[in-house]
Amino acid sequence: MANITKRVSWSSLCEDRAPGEGTALLDDTPGARRCRRQEFSGGSLFRIGRLSTIDLDEEVTSKEETLKQPNEIPHNEKLLSLKYESLDYDNIENQLFLEEEGQMSPMGFKCVEISRWVICGLIGFLTGLIACFIDIVVEIVAAYKYKIVKRYIDQFVVEGGLCASVILWAILNSAFVMAGSLVVAIFEPIAAGSGIPQIKCYLNGVKIPRVVRLKTLVVKVFGVICSVVGGLAVGKEGPMIHSGAVVAAGVSQGRSTSLKKDLKIFEYFRRDTEKRDFVSAGAAAGVSAAFGAPVGGVLFSLEEGASFWNQMLTWRIFFASMISTFTLNFFRSIYNGNPGELANPGLINFGQFESGAYKLYEIPIFICMGAVGKDGFSDRCVIEAILAAAATATVSYILMYCSDDCQTPGEHQAVEYPLQLFCPDGQHNSIATVFFNTPERSVRNLFHNFPGSYNSLTLFLFTFTYFFLACWTYGLTVSAGVFIPSLLLGAAWGRLIVGMLPDSVHSALICPIFADPGKYALMGAAAQLGGIVRMTLSLTVIMVEATGNVTYGLPIMLVLMTSKIVGDYFAEGLYDIHIKLQSVPFLGWEAPATSHSFTAREVMSSPVMCFNRTEKVGTIVDVLSNTSAKHNGFPIVSDFTTNEVYLFYSTQVIKFFLHVFVERAQLKQRKLLLKDFRDAYPRFPPIQSIHVSQDERECTMDLTEFMNPTPYTVPQETSLPRVFKLFRALGLRHLVVVDNENRVVGLVTRKDLARYHLGKHGLEELQLAQT
Amino acid sequence: MANITKRVSWSSLCEDRAPGEGTALLDDTPGARRCRRQEFSGGSLFRIGRLSTIDLDEEVTSKEETLKQPNEIPHNEKLLSLKYESLDYDNIENQLFLEEEGQMSPMGFKCVEISRWVICGLIGFLTGLIACFIDIVVEIVAAYKYKIVKRYIDQFVVEGGLCASVILWAILNSAFVMAGSLVVAIFEPIAAGSGIPQIKCYLNGVKIPRVVRLKTLVVKVFGVICSVVGGLAVGKEGPMIHSGAVVAAGVSQGRSTSLKKDLKIFEYFRRDTEKRDFVSAGAAAGVSAAFGAPVGGVLFSLEEGASFWNQMLTWRIFFASMISTFTLNFFRSIYNGNPGELANPGLINFGQFESGAYKLYEIPIFICMGAVGKDGFSDRCVIEAILAAAATATVSYILMYCSDDCQTPGEHQAVEYPLQLFCPDGQHNSIATVFFNTPERSVRNLFHNFPGSYNSLTLFLFTFTYFFLACWTYGLTVSAGVFIPSLLLGAAWGRLIVGMLPDSVHSALICPIFADPGKYALMGAAAQLGGIVRMTLSLTVIMVEATGNVTYGLPIMLVLMTSKIVGDYFAEGLYDIHIKLQSVPFLGWEAPATSHSFTAREVMSSPVMCFNRTEKVGTIVDVLSNTSAKHNGFPIVSDFTTNEVYLFYSTQVIKFFLHVFVERAQLKQRKLLLKDFRDAYPRFPPIQSIHVSQDERECTMDLTEFMNPTPYTVPQETSLPRVFKLFRALGLRHLVVVDNENRVVGLVTRKDLARYHLGKHGLEELQLAQT
Repeated sequence: MANITKRVSWSSLCEDRAPGEGTALLDDTPGARRCRRQEFSGGSLFRIGRLSTIDLDEEVTSKEETLKQPNEIPHNEKLLSLKYESLDYDNIENQLFLEEEGQMSPMGFKCVEISRWVICGLIGFLTGLIACFIDIVVEIVAAYKYKIVKRYIDQFVVEGGLCASVILWAILNSAFVMAGSLVVAIFEPIAAGSGIPQIKCYLNGVKIPRVVRLKTLVVKVFGVICSVVGGLAVGKEGPMIHSGAVVAAGVSQGRSTSLKKDLKIFEYFRRDTEKRDFVSAGAAAGVSAAFGAPVGGVLFSLEEGASFWNQMLTWRIFFASMISTFTLNFFRSIYNGNPGELANPGLINFGQFESGAYKLYEIPIFICMGAVGKDGFSDRCVIEAILAAAATATVSYILMYCSDDCQTPGEHQAVEYPLQLFCPDGQHNSIATVFFNTPERSVRNLFHNFPGSYNSLTLFLFTFTYFFLACWTYGLTVSAGVFIPSLLLGAAWGRLIVGMLPDSVHSALICPIFADPGKYALMGAAAQLGGIVRMTLSLTVIMVEATGNVTYGLPIMLVLMTSKIVGDYFAEGLYDIHIKLQSVPFLGWEAPATSHSFTAREVMSSPVMCFNRTEKVGTIVDVLSNTSAKHNGFPIVSDFTTNEVYLFYSTQVIKFFLHVFVERAQLKQRKLLLKDFRDAYPRFPPIQSIHVSQDERECTMDLTEFMNPTPYTVPQETSLPRVFKLFRALGLRHLVVVDNENRVVGLVTRKDLARYHLGKHGLEELQLAQT
Repeated sequence: MANITKRVSWSSLCEDRAPGEGTALLDDTPGARRCRRQEFSGGSLFRIGRLSTIDLDEEVTSKEETLKQPNEIPHNEKLLSLKYESLDYDNIENQLFLEEEGQMSPMGFKCVEISRWVICGLIGFLTGLIACFIDIVVEIVAAYKYKIVKRYIDQFVVEGGLCASVILWAILNSAFVMAGSLVVAIFEPIAAGSGIPQIKCYLNGVKIPRVVRLKTLVVKVFGVICSVVGGLAVGKEGPMIHSGAVVAAGVSQGRSTSLKKDLKIFEYFRRDTEKRDFVSAGAAAGVSAAFGAPVGGVLFSLEEGASFWNQMLTWRIFFASMISTFTLNFFRSIYNGNPGELANPGLINFGQFESGAYKLYEIPIFICMGAVGKDGFSDRCVIEAILAAAATATVSYILMYCSDDCQTPGEHQAVEYPLQLFCPDGQHNSIATVFFNTPERSVRNLFHNFPGSYNSLTLFLFTFTYFFLACWTYGLTVSAGVFIPSLLLGAAWGRLIVGMLPDSVHSALICPIFADPGKYALMGAAAQLGGIVRMTLSLTVIMVEATGNVTYGLPIMLVLMTSKIVGDYFAEGLYDIHIKLQSVPFLGWEAPATSHSFTAREVMSSPVMCFNRTEKVGTIVDVLSNTSAKHNGFPIVSDFTTNEVYLFYSTQVIKFFLHVFVERAQLKQRKLLLKDFRDAYPRFPPIQSIHVSQDERECTMDLTEFMNPTPYTVPQETSLPRVFKLFRALGLRHLVVVDNENRVVGLVTRKDLARYHLGKHGLEELQLAQT
């Protein structure tokens, strides 16, 4: 409690609206009034916020610091950006909404419910289809590529001049990666990476521009195909989650901005609340298609998104997931020539592990493996994709070239592109089965190839080089996921350290514990992946489902728990680091444990801009144009009694209303309907696009119809955990803080809550920045 | 909206506190004041509640009806009982609590977190142990019983006089069932049945007395063993969920009321919020042990209990589930002589289904099967357990006796107790494999026995008789579950109608669709179970996990969806019927769809009893003794300003405080600590046990320290769905309704919300009754 570093940001919060507005505060302009705060002058504003926790000396210090603050805001993880807007998962129950709901019959509600199911079915279907498309295209193109390269290699091994084949391979890879990278960089930079951090943010309630657009999806799909075919150390699973989310956002809204097409269906769902639900379903469908893990998908969505668990919603999400796996399965079965044979779910499938193959005494070993699997990836943002692709090919080639690890293929294992190289006839180069292959197949090989398929040196070299390749690749402007590289890496060292070492010490027969290195490859993969993405429940279920064997649940869970605990000790998960680096105001599940002594009074932003029920257009325009306002919702207060009535409002609605008002200049002729807002959702015109003449500024607008008459409020004394819980559980965007007489004294937004987090030295407070 | 039958109950609500209290309202007694309502006289009380929706004529009608209401309250599902108290999942953040939290260091919070994990581990371990105990005891005793009976039957078939063996069987069964039934009836009647409805209610937030006591657990375990060994048409899986919950409640509180033992540990967790979390984990561990379905267990807990999804909580629940399966698995492996061989999770295991054995065109068939599986069980409460046991034995025997369906045992199927009866040597009686066996084994036989193991007549007779036996058995005072009978029944008709019929039409060779009747048995079982319990997501996952094959997920889900939709059309699920019959105020996930036009003003109970910050002891005693008060929390208001400050309070705390105050009569000497409340939790002394002298009545008590200074409030105009969402998402017990000036006008409790439900004719309102 004692060592809180809150001084700095508090002052910056207050100060960066002070110069221009401190005076406006005292001006009793007819327009926007600062509710309740009018009674305090500039200095005391500050004091009120901290009255109970800080003495005057400290205050002076912080004021001094204030002056230099705004200039030295670096863009790092100790900042929270103010540029991100929140989504509003609380229905704005204004008059229009209530009227519409009142007119709907029970049958109408049933129709809406049925549409929800239909949409979820569609989401699942389309997501599965996209997964199938990516999979088949990658398979065809990669097969073609590998065949060409293999032919040249085989030919040159005999004839000499292997150099040419390396160059061919490198050029082919580079060409694919260049295509993918260029498209991403030019058309839609947000399609780079796996998209999982962005979807996490979206589900958490932060608006990330352009993230669920059709264009993003197209670029992403193309990019993924290129980077996987280009042989980078990447996977196609992560991007499926993003793809599913885009599909969901598109289908549920019944229109596309990229295509400029509005199908005029599903208009009821054009609001944040409904859209988020569908995006959850889409993300789940994506996970489900990627790993053949419908339950894992549902849990992923819940873990990342759901604040309030709703049975019907979850059931719908599950439906979308199931349909998605099923669709992928079905179309792949057609592609593979066994139509209707539904036994091939997921883009990656770990293959069948035999049941109950582990013993009790192996569990401690698995736990130790969990401790090893930590984060190794870092984020280096350079457009060196082509170089990376060429390097990957070259390094792989050199490794294969130098390796003398030859293996005879076993009975049950088909090697897709066996490279003989300098091995005797009937044998193939061992390291080539992991390098000269799509990563999904490599993972399966590592899991299932019989003991002794790889010698320790091979695995060590692979682990070592692949680690650096993966680190390098991650952060390139290509669309690609980190799941498969992590699995591959983990599987390799899992097989290496546990499955292989004893082999060199004593034979596998003497020590039957280590008889099946594939099992340890699986645990290594789980540990590595867990250490990198730090998902918990959902990852366990995904792994179990991909393994197809419930029995491995407990060891996988223990491994994941260990890797999370050990990993958290050193650094945060990859996605969280990403989110932090972007300074996104991401809300955790609970307020920091030691924050009970903080109250709403200290947390809230103040002063708050307020409106009257009927307000002058000029005032509204001035307030909305004021970019220093930190909130997008404005309490509406009436002052005809001593006790003010607070009511609530969303900026977007005002902006739009103004827009309509001014553009048409004849509002009286047509009543504004909910439909108008839905048509404009989610891109309401910015206030800057509206030109208001001096005459128009004098008009008044009645805001009653659009305000939410019953916003949630909390008293000033409410503790931070309580505020947090209310905010998070209901998915709020703004929470009004009132005093005992029900007058507005402040507003709590996402940024106010996301600022506090538990660091190594107790509670820390992040700074807010405009960047 | 028009045809709401709300007139009756509204009046009863207001009226049953009118005679005695209507006058008290106008009396300005120094003590309890009705906040804000003082200004309105009796008649207008009513008007305020409905001002906006009803005219005066209707009011008169409703008043007339009022007079006859209280006498004609039947105990049926159109009632809501007032006898059930709510649990409070919102932390009461009073001064004591905040002080304690303030004193805790970050390390202290870490210790608490670690204890939570330890407790969850213990819960899982003990639950698994209990499951293992039940399983092994049942197995040993049942084996002994079947061996004796088999010996006699085999002997009498040769010697004649089969009658004696029937009597022996019937007597053995009756003896077991009598023992179980007597113990349940005498010692703990709440241990009857599966306990799932009770746990559902508990997780939903309703306090069911004695449901999580150690005594209940002991009786339950004994009862389950007796009824399963006694050969009733029951299973031991359902009761495991209840057992897990009891274990959780016991372990997390560190003491037992039944044993009168307090270990003085885990005192921090002695409040509703924490206890509920652990009980969720216990229920999940129970499911996990019963079906070997850890993920299904987590989803069950979430589906039934969680209002606010919390990642760490879910993760802990999952941990408990995993440990539970693992423990069961481990101890069973020791019992079976393969210690450490962890491949046998769950009390019931459906055995391995081969992967991907169904084709696309089978799905419509599965869906039709879903439509067939509806509810057939009814609740008949008679103590005829012994009769039922004897009848079960006799009927089974007659069926076996009359059957001439002889089968040669296949290679891969071991029949545990093959009865030869009148079959040729080397064959056994087919119907005996389902009747003369523990139900778990019978289910497995139906799933996996090769095509043609049973002829259609056998299956038909079995289905027919078992249906009636199961219906009869359900509702007896024995501890037993409905899962296994449902599965057995479903498997039988699944095998019958789909797997068997074509056999009589054309051979299995011509029509390979129906080649594997076991698959249809599985779908039939899913349909039947889904139709009875109406669980959705969790049941799918449980079935998938018990099957051990992810591939069957989609068809199982479709079957469950169909059976739920079809079932819901006819009647509610078994557990829901149970809950309704008990008139429990159970809250759904969302407010009824058409309830947007209702506001808090109409929903709330009023007038509300209020206290001052410092209140006379006499007043407090009077208010608390007043049994007609419908709420257990009392707003605390201060009237030294025009605008009253409302604050909040829980009865239990007041009661206890009074108790301490009066008993010791020397409060000044010792400050009351949070510890005192924790020691008394959850059984605070009733107010009737406190005798207050006339002198003591004149003392004043300061309530400030114990009140929650920041209760959640809503304005009067808040719509019902909004109130509902707030109440449900935060797990509240009372929600204060205030007017624009922040004065208390009403209180919303669980009963006020549970009253409204969507019936066949639109929104209906249930009556409230004291029974």
